[in-house]
Amino acid sequence: MTGPLKVALLGCGTVGSAVLRVLQGQADELGARIGRPVEVAGVAVRRPAHHPDVPAHLLTTDAHALVTRDDVDLVVEVIGGIEPARSLMLAAFEAGKSVVSANKALLADDGVALHAAAAKAGVDLHYEAAVAGAIPILRPLRESLVGDQLSRIVGIVNGTTNYILSRMAETGAGFGEALAEATELGYAEADPTADVDGFDAAAKAAILASLAFHTPVSAADVHREGISTVTATDVARAAEIGCTVKLLAICERVPGEDGDSVAVRVHPAMIPTSHPLASVGGAFNAVFVEAEAAGQLMFYGQGAGGEPTASAVLGDLVAVARNRMTGAPGPGVTGYANLAVRPMAETPTRYHVSLDVADKPGVLAAVAQEFATHDVSISTVRQTGRGDAATLVIVTHSAPDAALSATISALREMPAVRGVTSVLRVEGLS
Amino acid sequence: MTGPLKVALLGCGTVGSAVLRVLQGQADELGARIGRPVEVAGVAVRRPAHHPDVPAHLLTTDAHALVTRDDVDLVVEVIGGIEPARSLMLAAFEAGKSVVSANKALLADDGVALHAAAAKAGVDLHYEAAVAGAIPILRPLRESLVGDQLSRIVGIVNGTTNYILSRMAETGAGFGEALAEATELGYAEADPTADVDGFDAAAKAAILASLAFHTPVSAADVHREGISTVTATDVARAAEIGCTVKLLAICERVPGEDGDSVAVRVHPAMIPTSHPLASVGGAFNAVFVEAEAAGQLMFYGQGAGGEPTASAVLGDLVAVARNRMTGAPGPGVTGYANLAVRPMAETPTRYHVSLDVADKPGVLAAVAQEFATHDVSISTVRQTGRGDAATLVIVTHSAPDAALSATISALREMPAVRGVTSVLRVEGLS
Repeated sequence: MTGPLKVALLGCGTVGSAVLRVLQGQADELGARIGRPVEVAGVAVRRPAHHPDVPAHLLTTDAHALVTRDDVDLVVEVIGGIEPARSLMLAAFEAGKSVVSANKALLADDGVALHAAAAKAGVDLHYEAAVAGAIPILRPLRESLVGDQLSRIVGIVNGTTNYILSRMAETGAGFGEALAEATELGYAEADPTADVDGFDAAAKAAILASLAFHTPVSAADVHREGISTVTATDVARAAEIGCTVKLLAICERVPGEDGDSVAVRVHPAMIPTSHPLASVGGAFNAVFVEAEAAGQLMFYGQGAGGEPTASAVLGDLVAVARNRMTGAPGPGVTGYANLAVRPMAETPTRYHVSLDVADKPGVLAAVAQEFATHDVSISTVRQTGRGDAATLVIVTHSAPDAALSATISALREMPAVRGVTSVLRVEGLS
Repeated sequence: MTGPLKVALLGCGTVGSAVLRVLQGQADELGARIGRPVEVAGVAVRRPAHHPDVPAHLLTTDAHALVTRDDVDLVVEVIGGIEPARSLMLAAFEAGKSVVSANKALLADDGVALHAAAAKAGVDLHYEAAVAGAIPILRPLRESLVGDQLSRIVGIVNGTTNYILSRMAETGAGFGEALAEATELGYAEADPTADVDGFDAAAKAAILASLAFHTPVSAADVHREGISTVTATDVARAAEIGCTVKLLAICERVPGEDGDSVAVRVHPAMIPTSHPLASVGGAFNAVFVEAEAAGQLMFYGQGAGGEPTASAVLGDLVAVARNRMTGAPGPGVTGYANLAVRPMAETPTRYHVSLDVADKPGVLAAVAQEFATHDVSISTVRQTGRGDAATLVIVTHSAPDAALSATISALREMPAVRGVTSVLRVEGLS
């Protein structure tokens, strides 16, 4: 091979234009690191007129023609969404070209088939930018920790919801008010559904779990709850027990009598303020990893934005370019363990429950009996107030999620319970 | 290739025996990840009788014969030290075998020659375990961040000194007392020189700088100061200005008129308690990275111990085994940038200085003039006490280290200065 390695860039939004800027501005440095010059062969966009900064001769609307061009060596996909990204990626593989992607939705939806297509073609598929922006986490899972047995990943992987929850804690605002502020400041999209309802975090959780447990996990396997139901009361109650509310992506290996399974879930939870994830504020991301030999690890950094995401894309680009030079793709992703995905109902969790009750003798006993009936053990109970305003705050031990949610339903029906004012899962309490 | 991949293990101390335990206990899992079974071909030790837990047929005292054996595919070197590790590694390369090492001293001393030998032989050399134990940091620098421009790395990479400094802060003890406690608890070696004098951290700093800046940096290039001169007064003064004392390994790219250079140094410093590194306590390690596009990143975890170090060794082992399967080594380490190493005297730093002075009119003016004479700008001055007990606490702006140390020498000679009671560099203050 002679001459420069040529890169096809698919998409030129915030991330794509940052990638283009670095690829052109740092071309000499990147070439030295790869061992061969690298240049942009073309940029596929839908509306060329919207990209006056991109040299006109590079722009094309025919993405398919670009990825299959003979002189293109590598493809960077930053279009996002399922189609046409998926078809373009498959066309690239068929044409023998490695792909770097930032597409969490696609990888979480169809990662197994895409990896199989890349392996069949003998090319690379990397997507570090798809999870936690600039933070190197997928390569550490795929390679650095591949000799260890991972037990648990807990991540704050969505900056928008983390910003909203941080503001709720700081100002006492409700969800709606904090969301409005986030939208105004540009931290939330005009349609915030993907973020606030947890779809974005669930896609990332699926990707993390797949790599960590050598098991195919798709977005559909992830139990998903967003933050729109988190109230100012929940946030205040969390503070009272030394906790803070975060939207967590949790991937666990759960031992069972008939073999281990994996539980993958995204939901808001109270975590102790002393937990390393508790101080991850604003738009930052962090991923906490527990492994048998390595113990506890944490990875922290910027989870979104054009430049940080471009850093991850370009790291992958140099890696796949180097592999292109040696003629051998790097290691793929293994799914050999193929562990069962445990339904949320059977996943062990802990609940925090706050109840308004009549302050009469026997109420606590009746409430406690309801937990016992569902085989849920109580960790702590705190009673505040007197008379009409009496409040019971209960934190349970770990129990199957279905038993906990059945307990809550039963409590709502109890005459002595005037209202269930806050229900939230608790993570990381000893 | 058929049959299992065979691994030669050189050394069987704390790390080696943990590697052996996982290699044997998790052989099926590791084999599935590599795509071929993996087994131990032999374990080279000095005194076989000291290793009753290792199957006798695996033990040998002839390490050279083991690494060059035809049936050995991969070599794990956890002997430590320069020789015989260096000769054995070179022999392995010549015999076409990839090497995984945990040997910071050797890599910091002779990394360029070793990488060249590995590249010439077309094999891999990985040593994630050499820096910050289980924390994936070298692979992220070599691969994940290779498309970015790194500006700065600040690490807490030595658990022994971090434990001693943490205890000094918690108990008010002096260095000697805290060291004695660390020795008793097994956190410090009987001869603690390598840790407390900063040799261990300096080797790690050299490795981090080499990878981050694509520039050969050896341990001899690292400015090194240990913690044995840190006093209880220094620790107390740090607390007074909202700081804590840490032994930092700092690798910086310093812009200059005639091109950039790199400054690599290990010394104790005051950092603000709000800095992410400030809360890294006890035997934990953390590495803080700043890159142009990625922004700020932090990697946190266990920096030492048999199991955590084995996690890093085994991650590398799976990686090099996979490369052995595809027949192509992974990317090596580039030194193309070849930046000059900036002497400490010319490296910009900031100082905290505490002076006992006579509380007379004109003393502050005279002291301030001494800083000005050396072209050192003062950030803050705080005066406490009256009469004989008056104390001036000064934090400077950034200046060349030589100008700062010359200022201190001059202050010691001033008649109005009764004593310089604390001098420590400051990092991370705005």
